[in-house]
Amino acid sequence: MNSKPQSFTILGVDPGSRITGFGLVRVSQGQIVHVSHGVIVMDAGGGFSGRMLELGSAFAEVIGKYRPDHVAIEKIFLGKNADSAFKLGHARGVVMYEALRGGAQVFEYATRLVKKGVTGDGGASKEQVQAVLKALLRIDKINRLDASDALAMACHHAYEMQKKAVVGRAIEL
Amino acid sequence: MNSKPQSFTILGVDPGSRITGFGLVRVSQGQIVHVSHGVIVMDAGGGFSGRMLELGSAFAEVIGKYRPDHVAIEKIFLGKNADSAFKLGHARGVVMYEALRGGAQVFEYATRLVKKGVTGDGGASKEQVQAVLKALLRIDKINRLDASDALAMACHHAYEMQKKAVVGRAIEL
Repeated sequence: MNSKPQSFTILGVDPGSRITGFGLVRVSQGQIVHVSHGVIVMDAGGGFSGRMLELGSAFAEVIGKYRPDHVAIEKIFLGKNADSAFKLGHARGVVMYEALRGGAQVFEYATRLVKKGVTGDGGASKEQVQAVLKALLRIDKINRLDASDALAMACHHAYEMQKKAVVGRAIEL
Repeated sequence: MNSKPQSFTILGVDPGSRITGFGLVRVSQGQIVHVSHGVIVMDAGGGFSGRMLELGSAFAEVIGKYRPDHVAIEKIFLGKNADSAFKLGHARGVVMYEALRGGAQVFEYATRLVKKGVTGDGGASKEQVQAVLKALLRIDKINRLDASDALAMACHHAYEMQKKAVVGRAIEL
């Protein structure tokens, strides 16, 4: 005898950026019993970040409805470079998802464009970007290069918004 | 004159799977004003999926606190193959994050192992996997191959749990 529950629920997931499959089984007294299965189909017209919101919201519903004890997901093996892009993809997915859940719009810019927009030089070093930002935003210290890159991204977007305001209809910023 | 708000907030993000930078600026009457910046450092001891939970939770806090109107994020260009792995990474990140938020534990298995566990053949086709699962779980129909792959993942995990129960301490399933 032990204190483990007599039955528990496993959710298997086959994640994809357009269609994600899911399947639920319950294990009880050594028997595996089918509970449910289905797919989350993301709207092709929703754009990539919109699809992440659809996926996350629909998947959260499945989790909330069945409260699985365990989730099993495919383990993927990639080469060293692809592996770091893959991991970065995860981080980006979570960030986009929470941004959209929180009601923000998401915009993407190439780093080179951001550096060029902020420092005038698309090949500027992270240190140069930081120095320009400190002057631009009148702050003494930015502790981390990751944070100054993020601030540069925010400022570049601000410039882009202002440019659109100039070329298009007048939008007060 | 228009109905746009007089000031709005932009959050720039530099996502990474270990450290994510963020920076907030407010744009008001053509001026860009620094609001805040920082990094989300994920616990190296937390495992990859644990880091996604840390990232998502901390990022949700930033979003909740500052309610940015826009989020700006680096656009990344990759080759065709790396690009699909990258997109898959996003979907997987969102799935892991919501699974953990919902209180489930996350397990990963290579597809080949799952196919071998369920059908006896690591090279089985998706159709073969589906046929075996229908018999195994006594269900007439699985509409999508994505869903049967997900069910196979769930069943494989159930087997693994049962194996552990046999070799380790007795755990009633």
